Amino acid sequence: MEIEFLRDIGQRLFKEISLFKPQFNTTALGRGASGDTTFPIDKLAEDRIIEAFEKAGAKINIISEERGSKLIQENYPSLIIDPIDGSKNAVSGIPFFSTSIAIAEGETLKSLKLGYIINLVNGDEFWAKRDEGAFFNGQRIKTRDNTMPVIIAFEASTPHNAVKQILPVLKIANRVRCFGSTALDLAYLSRGALSIFIVPTPSRIFDFSAGVLIAKESSAIVTDIEGNSIENLKIAFNTKTTLLVSANETLHKKALDLIK
Amino acid sequence: MEIEFLRDIGQRLFKEISLFKPQFNTTALGRGASGDTTFPIDKLAEDRIIEAFEKAGAKINIISEERGSKLIQENYPSLIIDPIDGSKNAVSGIPFFSTSIAIAEGETLKSLKLGYIINLVNGDEFWAKRDEGAFFNGQRIKTRDNTMPVIIAFEASTPHNAVKQILPVLKIANRVRCFGSTALDLAYLSRGALSIFIVPTPSRIFDFSAGVLIAKESSAIVTDIEGNSIENLKIAFNTKTTLLVSANETLHKKALDLIK
Repeated sequence: MEIEFLRDIGQRLFKEISLFKPQFNTTALGRGASGDTTFPIDKLAEDRIIEAFEKAGAKINIISEERGSKLIQENYPSLIIDPIDGSKNAVSGIPFFSTSIAIAEGETLKSLKLGYIINLVNGDEFWAKRDEGAFFNGQRIKTRDNTMPVIIAFEASTPHNAVKQILPVLKIANRVRCFGSTALDLAYLSRGALSIFIVPTPSRIFDFSAGVLIAKESSAIVTDIEGNSIENLKIAFNTKTTLLVSANETLHKKALDLIK
Repeated sequence: MEIEFLRDIGQRLFKEISLFKPQFNTTALGRGASGDTTFPIDKLAEDRIIEAFEKAGAKINIISEERGSKLIQENYPSLIIDPIDGSKNAVSGIPFFSTSIAIAEGETLKSLKLGYIINLVNGDEFWAKRDEGAFFNGQRIKTRDNTMPVIIAFEASTPHNAVKQILPVLKIANRVRCFGSTALDLAYLSRGALSIFIVPTPSRIFDFSAGVLIAKESSAIVTDIEGNSIENLKIAFNTKTTLLVSANETLHKKALDLIK
């Protein structure tokens, strides 16, 4: 599987969603494997992605937000999908959501090989292949060099406690953002838009996998909020971790010092 | 001046910006009247709006973020423009920014007559005429009836203090958002996407005027964060106020109680 295969899926999804706007159908379809409500847009995106891999006869295990885990064979690579990252935005009518697809070859996050994110509102595409760099719409990208924090973004599934926890870091923020799509936060940080991105409440493997690879390949520093490596976390449906992702080492140290 | 005149300006701006992407030219052009940095996209948008009014021979005083105040004649109506609301997003490459245009007939905010906002990323349009309701892409809109808060959004020019101040309100939030465009926060709240929107650090007249009229016409409750009416604030370049805007009276009371 190569990036062009993922781009083809993403671009077709972007066209279908632009045309038929399934996000405006807010009839809940029940709960997905992750426990979150599944909406028609989530199901449509997941179906399209899995269909494409099945049609291509891909020998791959699947970890996906709605359907959960599908193990075909132990030694196969893993496909890690968030069909719609930012579902809440999508079904609320807020135009900021994406699709996130990652492929890992081994048993831990260190083995992430491909990452692809498409902004389903304007078609912005981000991708990375391990050791080959990160790209935005075909152009090589790098994080900000600037060591003064400009925009600090966060995500929080439990707002009050999470915001309380990151409050010290906001002392050095010029602006704060909370967009509601972890994949897009990581993508835009990778191309220099954000200085620091924090997720103080555990983020799920399908939310961050593609974004974390793109971030690393654009030279971001990625750890959990205590500064520990996340490289040895297992590729598994239930894997969760807090995240601290910074545009450079200096910013990362500043953020860690303030959190402690 | 009618809504169709404002929509014509907005749609032409949306096309020009989609095509030429002036947001990616991040060479600062100096500081505008508001003190913020002016970027090519801010100047382009402001020029287009003011040109259109001049060409139409409009007898109107102008209050605009970059050029400041231009008083033609005391008793003329006022045009209140934020050429690009969410400039920081735009020049950072984050696709969430808008144009906000309002017209007031008298001396205070109570006299706001027309409000128009266009999302410059996807072309979503919101408008309102006093006492005639609010609209999204031509359809009448109303805020959420639900009295349980789902998404609470905020804006903060000084992140640390502002976030500290709104922390108590986040106790009742299911999700939190900070998108970086006051005009769009007000617009999406008006069509039911957000429950509560808070700006604890003073927001400027050009950021909120169009959005406040749209919010009121879609039955949102609008006060400052202490619960005071903002209706008697002067239509003037330097007018600023904190904001608390809720989808309904019950949510507004809950938020006020928590802030106090």
